[in-house]
Amino acid sequence: MVTIKDIADKLGIAPSTVSKGLNDASDISPDLKQLVIDTSIEMGYVSKKMKRESKKRLCLFIENMLYKEEKDFGFDLVLGFKQAAYRNNWHVDIVELTPELQKLEPYDRYMTKHNYHGGFHLGLALKDPWMKQFETTTIPTVLLDNYIRKNPNVCYIGTDSYEGIDVAIEHLEELGHTRIALLNGSKDSMITTNRYEAYYMSMQNHELPLQENLIAHGHYVEESAKYHCSTLIENGATAIICGNDLLAVGVIKECKRLHIRVPEDISVIGFDNLPIAEQITPGLTTINQDRIDLGKNAYAALFWLIAKVPISRSLLRPSLIVRGSTGKCIYRANTGLS
Amino acid sequence: MVTIKDIADKLGIAPSTVSKGLNDASDISPDLKQLVIDTSIEMGYVSKKMKRESKKRLCLFIENMLYKEEKDFGFDLVLGFKQAAYRNNWHVDIVELTPELQKLEPYDRYMTKHNYHGGFHLGLALKDPWMKQFETTTIPTVLLDNYIRKNPNVCYIGTDSYEGIDVAIEHLEELGHTRIALLNGSKDSMITTNRYEAYYMSMQNHELPLQENLIAHGHYVEESAKYHCSTLIENGATAIICGNDLLAVGVIKECKRLHIRVPEDISVIGFDNLPIAEQITPGLTTINQDRIDLGKNAYAALFWLIAKVPISRSLLRPSLIVRGSTGKCIYRANTGLS
Repeated sequence: MVTIKDIADKLGIAPSTVSKGLNDASDISPDLKQLVIDTSIEMGYVSKKMKRESKKRLCLFIENMLYKEEKDFGFDLVLGFKQAAYRNNWHVDIVELTPELQKLEPYDRYMTKHNYHGGFHLGLALKDPWMKQFETTTIPTVLLDNYIRKNPNVCYIGTDSYEGIDVAIEHLEELGHTRIALLNGSKDSMITTNRYEAYYMSMQNHELPLQENLIAHGHYVEESAKYHCSTLIENGATAIICGNDLLAVGVIKECKRLHIRVPEDISVIGFDNLPIAEQITPGLTTINQDRIDLGKNAYAALFWLIAKVPISRSLLRPSLIVRGSTGKCIYRANTGLS
Repeated sequence: MVTIKDIADKLGIAPSTVSKGLNDASDISPDLKQLVIDTSIEMGYVSKKMKRESKKRLCLFIENMLYKEEKDFGFDLVLGFKQAAYRNNWHVDIVELTPELQKLEPYDRYMTKHNYHGGFHLGLALKDPWMKQFETTTIPTVLLDNYIRKNPNVCYIGTDSYEGIDVAIEHLEELGHTRIALLNGSKDSMITTNRYEAYYMSMQNHELPLQENLIAHGHYVEESAKYHCSTLIENGATAIICGNDLLAVGVIKECKRLHIRVPEDISVIGFDNLPIAEQITPGLTTINQDRIDLGKNAYAALFWLIAKVPISRSLLRPSLIVRGSTGKCIYRANTGLS
């Protein structure tokens, strides 16, 4: 159980100052007050005042995504969303979604019954029962990485895959790479399609050769890499862009097993910038999705949908984090594979 | 000069209630207070309290766009932006931008000198001197219908042309049209490119024939229509989607001159939903851009850029407003043109 003293210790301030921040006292600066509130949410502390005031309720649904530990993709997303929502006096519930729950109750009824003003959905697959219902829902609804046509109550938020992949290809081209492979994730997701299109368009724009046998589809997990990695290298790839960091980590591990050097023999780029990206050796060059900001962006979109401003997509700008897994393209005379 | 009484009269409430709203009194409901503030901004009234509190300053730049009268495209955009900004205690200046002003002073210096925290730009062309500077600006900057790569301080806002054009083509297809022309606007703008791509992709997705001679480029003004209208009809078009409402109005007028009936002989769709769309006969079917909401969306994007959340694009959902200018496709035996 987190106490006011824990928050004070973490921030290096007096417990009385934490109390002031949580109770909206006038003799504490707005910035410090905000920091106190953000930190208390981060540490899982909810003050009596917060409980009392939060009559406005939002629900964050999460499925097919880990979020409980700091290393998980969903962790910062949930945190950023909660921070932005609490600042504006919204209460947030977290619901782990299952197909069963979706079959049990229609989305709109579920939301109305629980008195939620809006929902934020993480990790839903195209085949999820509620996805169809989002086409007609009247509840303000924000989806991470899923797009629904026509319904003014639904907004898609995410990180711009097109610019992300483009910046990655630009980086590889500057390093002299031309035979750039794409190891993409699971086929039944919008984000996979976007990243494929982004790769296709960017390779064309940079006048780099498009080769069917340099494109592979796995799943967004580490283990998936080993089924594709050596084939892509045998087919001539000098660099592999992966659909997410887990796949990229899988590629680096598989290369180690095969005695292929990263980046001397092959450059590897991920997508997400998970904590693992800087823990692995070599460090993973990756396209950053700032998940705290994504969570805030989701709250912002939901806020405007509730205010009847029909934002349909709101995308975060990606940036490339360059680490050790990408290097100059050197002609590979012998990889031991061919 | 607008007075408190004018606002009271417009709202049908007592002047004392208006005062309460403007002075943040506690015995007035939040909704009514908001309405009072919104209305006072709409009528051009700025209270002493607003002036005193608005130390935070934003600048709205406008070029190549009319905005002073209600019928102008920019009118509601400016209004929506100001309403959202004033609610959050920002002061907004409006600056009519010229290439000369841009050449006189670099953007960042201009903004810093005038103590602006952020800028919203309407109507800039790709060749404008400041456009290049937006690639590296450190000032939070929102652009209507212009996209800058890579810079996390800049965001593009607009209405989703892709969904807009797609919904228009869907509507025409349901009416039996297959030979659908695109009369697009000026070539040196991002929005023209988007609308062309949207048309191209949507025609393909609907498996409708793409014909080079059914695509024309004019300018975003009424007069432009007469140079293209009869050619498109001679080439077999039974429907014309126009890059904006002014072009569509030009098409309707040109058809009248040529004794071609709208919609019996040719269906016409615009883009924007300007006031003229419902004033003309027949009423113009058009893709709605809610410009009040666009203005609010611009403020929202600017708010998040200032808070260092790098939103790169935030798009509004379009909707199709069906009026009299579209109808069932009837085989045209004789248009008097061929």
